[in-house]
Amino acid sequence: MTIEEKCINTIRCLAIDAVQKAGSGHPGAPMALAPAAYVLWMEHLRYSPENPEWFNRDRFVLSNGHASMLQYAVLHLTGYDISLDDIRNFRQWGSNTAGHPEYGLTPGIETTTGPLGQGLMNGVGMAMAEAHLAALFNKEGYPVVNHYTYVFCSDGDLMEGASHEAASLAGHLGLGKLICLYDDNHISIEGNTSLTYSDDVARRFEAYGWHVQNLGDKGNSLEAISDAFRQARQATGKPSMILLRTHIGYGAPNKQDTPEVHGSPLGEEEVKRTKAFYGWPEEETFLVPAEVRQHMRRAVSRGKEWEQAWRQMMDGYGRKYPELLEKFHQYQEQELPDGWDADVPHYEPSDGPKATRAVSSDVINAVAPRLPWLVGGSADLEPSTKTLINSSGYFEKGQYHNRNLAWGVREHNMCGASSGMSLHGGVRPFAATFFIFSDYARPAIRLACLMKLPVIYVMTHDSIGLGEDGPTHQPVEHLASLRAMPNMCLIRPADANEAAYAWRAAIRRKEGPTMLVLTRQKLPVFDRRKVAGAEGLYRGAYVISPERGSSPGLILIATGSEVQLALEAQRKLLEKDIDARVVSMPSWELFRRQPQAYRNEVLPPEVPARLAIEAGSPEGWREWVGDDGSVIGITRFGASAPYQENFRHYGFTVENIVNKARKRALEIS
Amino acid sequence: MTIEEKCINTIRCLAIDAVQKAGSGHPGAPMALAPAAYVLWMEHLRYSPENPEWFNRDRFVLSNGHASMLQYAVLHLTGYDISLDDIRNFRQWGSNTAGHPEYGLTPGIETTTGPLGQGLMNGVGMAMAEAHLAALFNKEGYPVVNHYTYVFCSDGDLMEGASHEAASLAGHLGLGKLICLYDDNHISIEGNTSLTYSDDVARRFEAYGWHVQNLGDKGNSLEAISDAFRQARQATGKPSMILLRTHIGYGAPNKQDTPEVHGSPLGEEEVKRTKAFYGWPEEETFLVPAEVRQHMRRAVSRGKEWEQAWRQMMDGYGRKYPELLEKFHQYQEQELPDGWDADVPHYEPSDGPKATRAVSSDVINAVAPRLPWLVGGSADLEPSTKTLINSSGYFEKGQYHNRNLAWGVREHNMCGASSGMSLHGGVRPFAATFFIFSDYARPAIRLACLMKLPVIYVMTHDSIGLGEDGPTHQPVEHLASLRAMPNMCLIRPADANEAAYAWRAAIRRKEGPTMLVLTRQKLPVFDRRKVAGAEGLYRGAYVISPERGSSPGLILIATGSEVQLALEAQRKLLEKDIDARVVSMPSWELFRRQPQAYRNEVLPPEVPARLAIEAGSPEGWREWVGDDGSVIGITRFGASAPYQENFRHYGFTVENIVNKARKRALEIS
Repeated sequence: MTIEEKCINTIRCLAIDAVQKAGSGHPGAPMALAPAAYVLWMEHLRYSPENPEWFNRDRFVLSNGHASMLQYAVLHLTGYDISLDDIRNFRQWGSNTAGHPEYGLTPGIETTTGPLGQGLMNGVGMAMAEAHLAALFNKEGYPVVNHYTYVFCSDGDLMEGASHEAASLAGHLGLGKLICLYDDNHISIEGNTSLTYSDDVARRFEAYGWHVQNLGDKGNSLEAISDAFRQARQATGKPSMILLRTHIGYGAPNKQDTPEVHGSPLGEEEVKRTKAFYGWPEEETFLVPAEVRQHMRRAVSRGKEWEQAWRQMMDGYGRKYPELLEKFHQYQEQELPDGWDADVPHYEPSDGPKATRAVSSDVINAVAPRLPWLVGGSADLEPSTKTLINSSGYFEKGQYHNRNLAWGVREHNMCGASSGMSLHGGVRPFAATFFIFSDYARPAIRLACLMKLPVIYVMTHDSIGLGEDGPTHQPVEHLASLRAMPNMCLIRPADANEAAYAWRAAIRRKEGPTMLVLTRQKLPVFDRRKVAGAEGLYRGAYVISPERGSSPGLILIATGSEVQLALEAQRKLLEKDIDARVVSMPSWELFRRQPQAYRNEVLPPEVPARLAIEAGSPEGWREWVGDDGSVIGITRFGASAPYQENFRHYGFTVENIVNKARKRALEIS
Repeated sequence: MTIEEKCINTIRCLAIDAVQKAGSGHPGAPMALAPAAYVLWMEHLRYSPENPEWFNRDRFVLSNGHASMLQYAVLHLTGYDISLDDIRNFRQWGSNTAGHPEYGLTPGIETTTGPLGQGLMNGVGMAMAEAHLAALFNKEGYPVVNHYTYVFCSDGDLMEGASHEAASLAGHLGLGKLICLYDDNHISIEGNTSLTYSDDVARRFEAYGWHVQNLGDKGNSLEAISDAFRQARQATGKPSMILLRTHIGYGAPNKQDTPEVHGSPLGEEEVKRTKAFYGWPEEETFLVPAEVRQHMRRAVSRGKEWEQAWRQMMDGYGRKYPELLEKFHQYQEQELPDGWDADVPHYEPSDGPKATRAVSSDVINAVAPRLPWLVGGSADLEPSTKTLINSSGYFEKGQYHNRNLAWGVREHNMCGASSGMSLHGGVRPFAATFFIFSDYARPAIRLACLMKLPVIYVMTHDSIGLGEDGPTHQPVEHLASLRAMPNMCLIRPADANEAAYAWRAAIRRKEGPTMLVLTRQKLPVFDRRKVAGAEGLYRGAYVISPERGSSPGLILIATGSEVQLALEAQRKLLEKDIDARVVSMPSWELFRRQPQAYRNEVLPPEVPARLAIEAGSPEGWREWVGDDGSVIGITRFGASAPYQENFRHYGFTVENIVNKARKRALEIS
């Protein structure tokens, strides 16, 4: 057995043993892909195990995340901070070797994968970020940002629609430093892939403008695989796809090439027979031969050398281009400079009425010059979402320095690749579409929440208030459904000044995604001399217009476009001797983080008469209105009509609020 | 001007005028596609305007639903029940000419479209349903089910990931009677499609195994288009894609081939100049020349003849194959025969523990013989979702009579095409995947709700209870997010017998989709001699185990796998002199439809001490527990660990329930 074979069999057997011990997991793909992973990590990938965050490292994404043990084994052997005990604890509570790779949990894991197709999109985003920063910072002799993004993917990844969006855009943009390897093992969970799948994958990716190599049945040929990676790098200006026919569960005498080996332990007997096939000690588990460890740990010193060389280059770069170096650090750290929001307008009633999506445009362009690392765009809706950075052009092939991202009609990839850009670092992405189409991107948005990425989602056309486009375009359940997503901070501002603060809050927030939910229709700009300041938005909810007396007879709580109605209703109610308070509640999440004392101040427990008004599902509002409160919400789908008609028919009128509020106040008192 | 040109210009000008009058809409695509629509509806499509439901009609899907006015104009002109006044009321409240085509609202509209990519998936499902029924019912000389499915689509449709899933499966299945026309107009909302899109579309669809014709710039050539449809039909065994270069806003002197004409009225001046270009009276609006009406209304008599001929054939068929004809009616009507659920097992505690997904398999196979129109499958997870109909094989090319649908790793298309099958009629589809992956299919699921289609979603692996696969696979927010979707009936059964009733409820429900949310892990089978009968599930919530005394000191409310914990906690609490009631609440939606009296019986308003237990987001539970209640839920993501560990760490233990319940009972009393 050559040392290479020994290393590869070590990887295979670690995966086999870990899955066997855990009693669950996916041994088949690691067994098949071990040679490719070995070749990549030992001959091609540039990384530094003792500093997994080294900025100029090559990125590696395991899009077929169920093969997690492949990556854990390689990370362990190349000297990352993953111990053999960690591998023994595969899939156990508190372990850093989770069932699927989790970003933030495990050193060397660049992104959380498992849901298929996601890693491919992340990879596209990483390659975009690299291209952008390279275009901005690289100088003759100083390729300070210069790395590849490698992605392993499976037939499942390539069946998912996400793969189309990712591959089509990557081909269009000519992302030459994105290199994917397709683990073509002919097996999916329900049987042979021929049951459901007969794409000519090479032809498909050629149609996207990719460089395609079809290696055939060379899953164990280190030479062929290595050569393919080399050729992929040489094919500049095009992303690369390497098709590699492999055998899932390679070496398992009874299970190779069967679905059984995909997602279940081999079983003790088969483990032994597989090890026998490899020429491996049958009784040993979690065996790492000393020579294997020594051989693969070379990655540590080699990584240090690469990193050292890069740092030396950065030193020279800093001497020659001190301003660029400073800027480079600025991009990496993304600190908000003093006065970063100085140009964000304050709006007066005379500036209105103004749609909050239009305010969003103002803010983006007010902060963009001071936050040069802010990049973003929309899924072919820019004229509607109003997300163009006016001072820059479109990020296109040969124009990678530009900051406007044109995603095409590809919401899912927009969000998946935005996550990839965020993971890469050096940029802060925002992603825009109609609120309804957040549904198309939901799996990627969820993973951004799970990874706590500070991506900003700009979601416009936020309710039946978009009018004529009708129910297919009108969100109803989306506020409720996204508020329920852990780590998401959703903000639905009520007027121009709240919208400006909403954007500020989004930019300030680093601990997870923020979703700005904005109107298509114009809203009046509240006179902040008459109502409370919009900075109250930072606290999630605030008394925008207090009661006249010492204690309110009723609290009206509203968000977004419905706050104007609540304010008008307050005036009307006063005429009827009901002294209401109006609370603007743009963000449940921000409000929940306030001290109890503040929350009681805004929504005093001793005031049970409450009415919430929001043009969306009432689900969850009982939390804020209590048993004695009620909600004007929407429990059916919208309709195609001018928005004023919709608001009227769905009960979002001052009159209906006044009636409901009076009823509430009378019933309580 | 030939009569054909007059008809085409009538279509164009109706679209122009309707959008202009509404002040919103999409004139550009109808102007470009009018010739193709004219040719299709006058020379190829077989339909009967006075009976839009004629079963053997060709189906037409406008996947680029924003071009709705194209379809309304053609429907009006060919004699469907859409008046000129309806067209004048385009996009107005109560009109049947909504902004995007809506199924159920407008005669002749086969499916609701607008969100891009959806129509393509629906079309695949329609073609699958046709193929299935044709395989079952057609006999030599009696092609009783024999129609085409035509789909128009745009660059937006083809950029969406959904298009990949749909096209890849359609190619694999060889759906020869699916014919798509790609409106290749080079314009998307942000500008020329070259900004984001450079797929070689012909090559891409060839890679999927489609028959592809690239007509080039022949958008106005009736002959070329007509010939292409003919050739598409002749290419049997492969779906067809016709690439047609068109000019968006054709004829508008200043706006043709610009994004401006996509989604906005032309403006009065441009309307006039466009009409001048067509040689149309500039001042006239909503003009339908008498000869145009006469020419296109021929569709009515022709349609009657087709329908008549088909009915005659059916008569002969009925004489020759009376049993098949009866079966055919059975498939169309889908009445539940007496005893349809007679073989659904009743489970005893000794049958358990049993995962509700395993029960689902039992039920499917118990009812499948009596409900032959029930078809379904999973997105490459059948061994896990357990949705195989054992008595049938897989629906494959040449095996279209089979009932098991293998969707591949394509959740979105699974749901979009299942909707298409349901819309087609003659089959009742179920669609299965892991609950978490409902996210991938959310846009299609939403449209099924909007269309009130009785699709059954079988969603297994329903919580952190799936264990080791970790947070990427563990739903948290999904119960809340899908309960918020209008028309969705979500059911999460607590044990085997509830699961059996859940399936019954799903099959009985015709007014919209039902989602069954099922466990991976095994659950004890409750002893129904000791607790209330599982038929209580039909009412959404029921007292599964009452208090001992006359009134409960506390109500424990739980769903799914948490009901067992509530029952155990009830016993423990009684030892501590707290007399709790346990309510099993599998479906909020079903419970909401009960009379208030019943709801008060189950959750008596006079009992404020309540504790809800559900392994998911607590959002919405306040509705049921009230101000004085509390919720054991999950507000963060899950974790990779054995499920018992997860339940313990997330507070789903009898001990925690008892402690929380005691606290609640004490605070209240």
